[in-house]
Amino acid sequence: MGVTVEMTVYEDRLQRLRARMEREGVDAMYLVMSGDLQYLTGVKRPPHNPTDDDKHGDELYGMYLTQERGPVFVVPRMGASDYVSEQSEGRDWIDDIIVIDEEDHPEDAASSLLERMGTPNRLAVSDRMWARALFLLRRVAPETCFCNARDLIVPMRAVKDEEETRIMQEAGRITDSAFSAVLKRLRLGMTDYDIAREIEHQLVLHGGSGVSFHTTVQICGADPAAAGGESVPVQPGSVIAFDFGVVYEGYVSDFGRTVFVGEPDQKFVEYHDAVMEAQSVAISAMRPGEVTAAELDRKARDVIDGRGWGDFFTHRLGHGIGIDVHEPPFLYQLDDTVLQEGMCFTVEPSIRIPGAVCVRVEDVVQVTPDGGSPFTSFSRDYLII
Amino acid sequence: MGVTVEMTVYEDRLQRLRARMEREGVDAMYLVMSGDLQYLTGVKRPPHNPTDDDKHGDELYGMYLTQERGPVFVVPRMGASDYVSEQSEGRDWIDDIIVIDEEDHPEDAASSLLERMGTPNRLAVSDRMWARALFLLRRVAPETCFCNARDLIVPMRAVKDEEETRIMQEAGRITDSAFSAVLKRLRLGMTDYDIAREIEHQLVLHGGSGVSFHTTVQICGADPAAAGGESVPVQPGSVIAFDFGVVYEGYVSDFGRTVFVGEPDQKFVEYHDAVMEAQSVAISAMRPGEVTAAELDRKARDVIDGRGWGDFFTHRLGHGIGIDVHEPPFLYQLDDTVLQEGMCFTVEPSIRIPGAVCVRVEDVVQVTPDGGSPFTSFSRDYLII
Repeated sequence: MGVTVEMTVYEDRLQRLRARMEREGVDAMYLVMSGDLQYLTGVKRPPHNPTDDDKHGDELYGMYLTQERGPVFVVPRMGASDYVSEQSEGRDWIDDIIVIDEEDHPEDAASSLLERMGTPNRLAVSDRMWARALFLLRRVAPETCFCNARDLIVPMRAVKDEEETRIMQEAGRITDSAFSAVLKRLRLGMTDYDIAREIEHQLVLHGGSGVSFHTTVQICGADPAAAGGESVPVQPGSVIAFDFGVVYEGYVSDFGRTVFVGEPDQKFVEYHDAVMEAQSVAISAMRPGEVTAAELDRKARDVIDGRGWGDFFTHRLGHGIGIDVHEPPFLYQLDDTVLQEGMCFTVEPSIRIPGAVCVRVEDVVQVTPDGGSPFTSFSRDYLII
Repeated sequence: MGVTVEMTVYEDRLQRLRARMEREGVDAMYLVMSGDLQYLTGVKRPPHNPTDDDKHGDELYGMYLTQERGPVFVVPRMGASDYVSEQSEGRDWIDDIIVIDEEDHPEDAASSLLERMGTPNRLAVSDRMWARALFLLRRVAPETCFCNARDLIVPMRAVKDEEETRIMQEAGRITDSAFSAVLKRLRLGMTDYDIAREIEHQLVLHGGSGVSFHTTVQICGADPAAAGGESVPVQPGSVIAFDFGVVYEGYVSDFGRTVFVGEPDQKFVEYHDAVMEAQSVAISAMRPGEVTAAELDRKARDVIDGRGWGDFFTHRLGHGIGIDVHEPPFLYQLDDTVLQEGMCFTVEPSIRIPGAVCVRVEDVVQVTPDGGSPFTSFSRDYLII
């Protein structure tokens, strides 16, 4: 039965995408290995390596889709073909897998692909397709007009369905439990590296498959000026700012809290109150059809501006999140997207004074008719250990 | 004095690159944040996140260079501007830093950049520039001809100078020591996750700043067929294949060995001998001017083919390596690059029979007049624990 549901979901997404393509006059789509492919086919994108890897055919690693054909995967023999074959088993909506061997010249492979696509007049490609691939495709299809597939896919991925919501709630639950386990293990003298390592271990122990981005632990000492803004081992009076997230079933979390070691000084308490109030105001306003991304950012910003600390809230209020840690829409002044039911955003106001203060909070929150519904429920009171 | 040397290195590289640009009729270059920027300016590229992140202005994060101006960094305010400012301190060859604020429209930012570059006739861009950025630059500079910067930079990065060699030797030393520490900690019942976690910890303890790619530990059980090809906890008779690498001062290692738990069976010994001989034959032949990448691949392949196991050596012999884990040239049949003194490659023949056998070895080896000089010296005999 699980399989039936999954088939319906992916086939439905592919059908909706094809309808969008037709509406926009896009004959074919070429998407690189990315969260888009997971969304459209169920084949999970492997995590990026920390430094660039480059296997033969990597520039074409992805899939194409026309009205008649696809999704057809295009995969380098080395490091990808076994993986995609395994992931495709039982996924009948995947039309074919084309393997690029180490003997295949990229130009020949690209020519043959364009021909299979029927040499489209208008071809939409991934937002992050490498320039190398775009140059290659242009060379073999000089008459084809290329455009960005982003606008076709973003509105679909932005709204999370029931199953996606269930998975992201579970990613939140893993995040809460792992954080709770980490706090129990905090000791004086631990460094940011020690704590980050413990977080990453606890995330996996609690069911995650890895981290969604590099774990950040910032320890402001009792006297941050003395440390020249550098991270120092945990000591009485330290303020520890956490920023981390997990991958679970191909979806991610992104979470933040600020922890005081001992009683915080009154100024920190005031900053903390302002940040939590800004977050709370924003979360309450996350109703479908009632607010834009820019307006939501403004609401939170007004709280911190109102206390005179606006200059220390130096970044957007948050970002869309789902398969990737940053997905459009973004909660900032240039984004006029109206919030819709099912969209998920981080809500993460902060007050940062370089070398002195770092107070932050972050939760992934879903837009619902009753206002925002956070996927993490860890206490937002002062966390004192 | 260290600073003087560093200045000379980067200024020299920039000068050589400008000469190449002039020769090729390239007026300007736009490179994204990558190993290229580290190579040309000393500003280290931060490790990629496991899932996609996307901050405002990220598509333009990089630097440009013309004959008159640059390197000029272009950096998103959020998450990048503080980092690049810090890294630029004392690096006088960096001309300027332009910050993209969250209020800046990408089209305006791109227009202004192209104007500063003097609206080049021919602009070379990074091999991996996002399609989004390329579309954006084309829109604001419709008369400009775009090409791939790869061919200009690859030949420079491929040959490692003395200081790069010293750093990569040190990365090799860290790798050897960490592996030695890991082997001492191997216990029956450990899983691939436990071992990978220990490797990553030991790499940092021994001086690395992180891993260069995802640590791979494959445990073939005494009866691999029984496990259906899945990784199983270490047991008597297990064969453990390691593949991992470290980042040290912005350069990487990539290393592999195969370890037997208890006495290996005779067939494994024969596979192991063949793989080691293939590697040894290739390493001896790594003399400047005497062999191409394709020929070197063939030499190693012949050894394994000669024993009748050619079908189980399913990938290229190796790849260039330096700032990134995979850099051109590549040791395979499509690459006719003649090996030059100072080039560094992995040499990594293997025999893999899915669900049954995995025997591998991998070292980073530099081309010298006396043949290949490996940066790792860990024993290549049977490793029996």
